[in-house]
Amino acid sequence: MIKNPYKTVFFENSPSVISTYSIVGEKEANGNLGKHFDQTLSDDRFGETTYEKAECKMLSAAVKGAIKKAGYNEKEMDLFVGGDLLNQIISASFTARDFEIPFLGLYNACSTIVESVIVASMAISGGFAENAVVGTVSHFSTAERQYRYPLELGSVRPPQSQWTVTGAGSFVLSGVDKGYPSVTSATIGKVVDYGVTDVNNMGAAMAPSCASTLVRHLKGTGTRPEDYDLILTGDLGALGSKIFDKLVKDDGFDVSLNHVDCGDIIYDTVESEFQGGSGAGCGAVVFASYVYPLLKEKKINKILFLATGALLSTVSSGQGESIPGITHAVCLENL
Amino acid sequence: MIKNPYKTVFFENSPSVISTYSIVGEKEANGNLGKHFDQTLSDDRFGETTYEKAECKMLSAAVKGAIKKAGYNEKEMDLFVGGDLLNQIISASFTARDFEIPFLGLYNACSTIVESVIVASMAISGGFAENAVVGTVSHFSTAERQYRYPLELGSVRPPQSQWTVTGAGSFVLSGVDKGYPSVTSATIGKVVDYGVTDVNNMGAAMAPSCASTLVRHLKGTGTRPEDYDLILTGDLGALGSKIFDKLVKDDGFDVSLNHVDCGDIIYDTVESEFQGGSGAGCGAVVFASYVYPLLKEKKINKILFLATGALLSTVSSGQGESIPGITHAVCLENL
Repeated sequence: MIKNPYKTVFFENSPSVISTYSIVGEKEANGNLGKHFDQTLSDDRFGETTYEKAECKMLSAAVKGAIKKAGYNEKEMDLFVGGDLLNQIISASFTARDFEIPFLGLYNACSTIVESVIVASMAISGGFAENAVVGTVSHFSTAERQYRYPLELGSVRPPQSQWTVTGAGSFVLSGVDKGYPSVTSATIGKVVDYGVTDVNNMGAAMAPSCASTLVRHLKGTGTRPEDYDLILTGDLGALGSKIFDKLVKDDGFDVSLNHVDCGDIIYDTVESEFQGGSGAGCGAVVFASYVYPLLKEKKINKILFLATGALLSTVSSGQGESIPGITHAVCLENL
Repeated sequence: MIKNPYKTVFFENSPSVISTYSIVGEKEANGNLGKHFDQTLSDDRFGETTYEKAECKMLSAAVKGAIKKAGYNEKEMDLFVGGDLLNQIISASFTARDFEIPFLGLYNACSTIVESVIVASMAISGGFAENAVVGTVSHFSTAERQYRYPLELGSVRPPQSQWTVTGAGSFVLSGVDKGYPSVTSATIGKVVDYGVTDVNNMGAAMAPSCASTLVRHLKGTGTRPEDYDLILTGDLGALGSKIFDKLVKDDGFDVSLNHVDCGDIIYDTVESEFQGGSGAGCGAVVFASYVYPLLKEKKINKILFLATGALLSTVSSGQGESIPGITHAVCLENL
């Protein structure tokens, strides 16, 4: 009766990821992946008067950069898909104003980057678009003051907290160009809630949804963790990653050998950011800067990219709601 | 060189809209379309302790109602696509928690309902999903206090303002069931900014994007306004509709005979809501309750549904930004 019980999405006509671009702040530039980013800022206001305008300018620069690296121009893009963490996704919306490209604004918190890749891939593989650009962004200073406290307060961060990445990542997907890493399958996440209420512990809130989506993807595609050169999650952080590995083991799979978390590797975690990075831009810049080149140069050939999101607002938490998580997965491989 | 300069999306394998469900508050129930809604509330808290929880419960009821009317169950839905106006789209996110359905959260303000139909239609027509449910919601009391002033302040509303609809609308789309109104083409909106900064005049902020998308759709499909039994916009309100009609006329098209705006018809506009309704739920409930049955009963056979969104947040307006608009269009017809 149910033909596809795990609701796996297969892209027979696989879109290619033909370029990526990353731009980050100073702290990220000084982290583990510093030399891999396309552009780094020494001023996290990016010459603007507010952090929000800087965030928007970063996403705009990333989108422009990815389109240029793809050898295309703006008019050849049929679709821009993206989002960010700010209320009413103003960074992505105002970025879209800079381009003459049809725009689909998405929001699934930090899982938005993979959500965007899935929507763009459906558009391309289904024949509704030839080329699409996706992009997400986050900024420490806008996120911190929107979700937590005014920066000027100098609040002490608890040890389970993550640090919102200041960065924007963008990728160009194409149905025309071949010979690049391809998006071959995806699993669209379900919302999973284990009742976590600590707004400083996003890793724990998101780990159950990440395990759920991973297991659905493995079962739906008939694969095992060892079939992937890399299982890339973003952003569980160090603590969330441990919970994820444990939950996956309970389901009979072992990811301890090839699981890497974007939040866990972007900073040198002996610093003050504790559990590592997070934010809609974290997975986007880690994939764009460090992982995509490995795929393109065939140093690795098949990865599963799971982007995790924590679904909350200051209002929902203030009203006593727990923090459900969602995780979207895409498989990228060299065919 | 450019094969599809207007970037029109054509659904050769057209998804059918097989059911709709609408639930509204008391004010909407007493408006022009009162008798058409599936469910009306006498208590706009819907038995909950907060308006936010009520908003979420309304969307959940609409999604359940649409799936039930379609003769399906939750497990047969491959995708839930939707959004709302609240920060971090908590209404749609928390609604998704109630269902075991893969979820794509979207945000394009009040244009989210048609954006959702487009994404679901690409998923179905492209063969990535068989059935999908879409839904959006808004609530006067949550939107007013988030975007404008505390309700208790009793602020005087300026004459150009619209009234946020308390309502949720949901539709089930299917690639399997035939003989229903079908989604045959779409135009994904570009962000258009005429520099309007009045947060009480959404109609004026959105009208230029609505005209832009209409003209792109007409040119991309080689149709004229008179080819449609109805050109349905939502939600320009009375003033925005006049601006839209004028802008379209400047482009050489006349929609004065068959243009109807959801915001303009939902209330009896001699009342205190001035320019009519708005909100992510407005277009959704007007289409679900009043327009869809006309299509299904073949009283009308071809419509263009243009949903308009104003892209702003309290932060963007506070920082002096203008209010860009976006409008997505879908053509629904009996084949």
